[in-house]
Amino acid sequence: MDTAADAPRDGGREPGPAGQADPLDGFTAVIPAGGSGTRLWPLSRSGAPKFLHDLTGSGRSLLQATVDRLRPLAGDRVLVVTGARHEEAVRAQLPGLAPEQVLVEPAPRDSMPAIGWAAAVLERQDPDAVLGSFAADHVIGDEPAFHGVVQQAVAAARTGALVTLGISPTHPATGFGYIQVGAEAPVPGAPDLRQVEAFVEKPDAQRAAEYLAGGAHLWNAGMFVVQARTLLELLEAGHPEMVRTLREIAAQPDLVTSRWDSLTRIAIDHAVAEPAAAAGRVRVLPARFAWDDIGDFASLAALLPESAEHPGLRVLGPGEHLLSDGSTGLVAAQGGRMVITLGLDDVVVVDTPDAVLVTTRERCQDVKAVVAALQERGRGDLT
Amino acid sequence: MDTAADAPRDGGREPGPAGQADPLDGFTAVIPAGGSGTRLWPLSRSGAPKFLHDLTGSGRSLLQATVDRLRPLAGDRVLVVTGARHEEAVRAQLPGLAPEQVLVEPAPRDSMPAIGWAAAVLERQDPDAVLGSFAADHVIGDEPAFHGVVQQAVAAARTGALVTLGISPTHPATGFGYIQVGAEAPVPGAPDLRQVEAFVEKPDAQRAAEYLAGGAHLWNAGMFVVQARTLLELLEAGHPEMVRTLREIAAQPDLVTSRWDSLTRIAIDHAVAEPAAAAGRVRVLPARFAWDDIGDFASLAALLPESAEHPGLRVLGPGEHLLSDGSTGLVAAQGGRMVITLGLDDVVVVDTPDAVLVTTRERCQDVKAVVAALQERGRGDLT
Repeated sequence: MDTAADAPRDGGREPGPAGQADPLDGFTAVIPAGGSGTRLWPLSRSGAPKFLHDLTGSGRSLLQATVDRLRPLAGDRVLVVTGARHEEAVRAQLPGLAPEQVLVEPAPRDSMPAIGWAAAVLERQDPDAVLGSFAADHVIGDEPAFHGVVQQAVAAARTGALVTLGISPTHPATGFGYIQVGAEAPVPGAPDLRQVEAFVEKPDAQRAAEYLAGGAHLWNAGMFVVQARTLLELLEAGHPEMVRTLREIAAQPDLVTSRWDSLTRIAIDHAVAEPAAAAGRVRVLPARFAWDDIGDFASLAALLPESAEHPGLRVLGPGEHLLSDGSTGLVAAQGGRMVITLGLDDVVVVDTPDAVLVTTRERCQDVKAVVAALQERGRGDLT
Repeated sequence: MDTAADAPRDGGREPGPAGQADPLDGFTAVIPAGGSGTRLWPLSRSGAPKFLHDLTGSGRSLLQATVDRLRPLAGDRVLVVTGARHEEAVRAQLPGLAPEQVLVEPAPRDSMPAIGWAAAVLERQDPDAVLGSFAADHVIGDEPAFHGVVQQAVAAARTGALVTLGISPTHPATGFGYIQVGAEAPVPGAPDLRQVEAFVEKPDAQRAAEYLAGGAHLWNAGMFVVQARTLLELLEAGHPEMVRTLREIAAQPDLVTSRWDSLTRIAIDHAVAEPAAAAGRVRVLPARFAWDDIGDFASLAALLPESAEHPGLRVLGPGEHLLSDGSTGLVAAQGGRMVITLGLDDVVVVDTPDAVLVTTRERCQDVKAVVAALQERGRGDLT
């Protein structure tokens, strides 16, 4: 990781003396806290999705770590958008947030209504407001580098662009979408800014290898930095009714109950990012910090340090509940009981109070099907 | 399995019309119920060893199944010898036994004092008593065949021999001792009787293959049928003090508390069987019934039927607690929680309320070391 390369090269705001950035004027962090994370079952449950869990052993949940990471840039200007089902847990984990800093969706409508609602709220408070949307369940390895890139993104957003952060691929991942990068397009405060040619779908292995070799593609981490009014303007092109409704709800919050269900269920990628890219309105900042959306247990294993006691094994949770010999892979001993692994390579063992999963790194994508099978079997209580 | 070949060929007692043998006059079943079964941890615990568990899905513990199996031969004449720690559980599992039918060892002294004590008790009741000693934690596949062989063994024991049952090997096992068989030595009622040349230790793989090919070796299942007075006479040769003490305890049961600790800790094999074989006093009845001492999870897996729902998988315990895909091996879901196995071959997953073991058939011999490691770590409470 090359921090210097990610830091602003010119007049961007430098991180403070303690390596902490100062809050950026008029910048608000918007944190959509949703998603079920079924491929991390049985750690992640519909009632307690992955953003509520400490999956890195840091002592902070992914949601808390996301807020912590954005505080130096946003100060107290944080909005979390979450489902009614998780409101209580979110407020409990983030006691520093005022009641109005948690926007509670009556039902999940995918990311566009969630982020659009936050944009409409911010637009009313400050017509020049810039928002940065960062999912509550991602992990970022180098915070100073992250701060530097977001600072550039905010500067770029002020020019009226939809700015995304594109992660430099470190391997030919097939689990992420990609951003096809175009010409350099620097603006004051954002010297590294590039044009976005297109957003491209998750590739197959061969295509992913080509992307990695070609150097013109970045991982789409779903991070957007944009003026609130720009986002709503871009959304208006395809979904004018949604923008009208979101502005009404922002003006009169009680309306959310009756109006929410009328909103189209759509992701921000399809509603705004892809059409705006086609219209030449999207810019990207290449970012070299380590990033992961912890999509499955293989991702989680890669994030955790190798156990000193058990070489080749990654351990999540109290080490005193694990006894292992000749095993590699991932063990999460979260059930309060002793877990023993003996002579297994690339194994994934996840123990919780009511379910224990035993699989391999290779098969860990199929955990999603387990959740479906449990629901079919009438054991939705476990999912 | 060829039942006819194992049935008596001449005047031995035939099984009754329902395939049940009638009780044999003067025959008592002695059932040593001890041993820790550490290689079956965490199913088997020092406080609840394997004989107390239903490991076959029959609905009966191994101890109960052993008594059930011997009832047709012994009627009510059953003696169980167990440790003080297990007395309560043994009596609870066998409510039909009178108090004096459970001999309670103050401390484990291996098999010779246990079986010798039973012999001394029986000798006082009936100088001609024949005892058959059968461990409480073995599994036998063909009860009529077993009954036929024991009937021959009782007839042979009445001639003053120490009679053992030798299991015809079905594979080159390295986990059992062997019996080297000598000349035919039929007696009335025991036409299949053979001389025993020697007891031989657990062989290596090559030697085991030679034994299997040669046809002159049987598995030593530790089953002995012998007159009580013969056993004590054979024991007297090497351990006269032990015989004296055992007869004193038999005469005055209260003495067991003060005298038990003076008894040498020794197995019946070393104390009696091996020296008696050297002296030409041991006979064997070849037996073709399926037999196993369930020494480890590989043995247990081999005993269980393949799951209809999950081909290649053996399942112990409630099937409703298991969800499996593309996995073979053994799953024991005994923890009351859902167990999921996904894409693992020859895996062993044993879930209990306070510990879950994940290993492979290949490594399942090493489970013993896990128990030792837990004790070292101060978690003897789990063992």
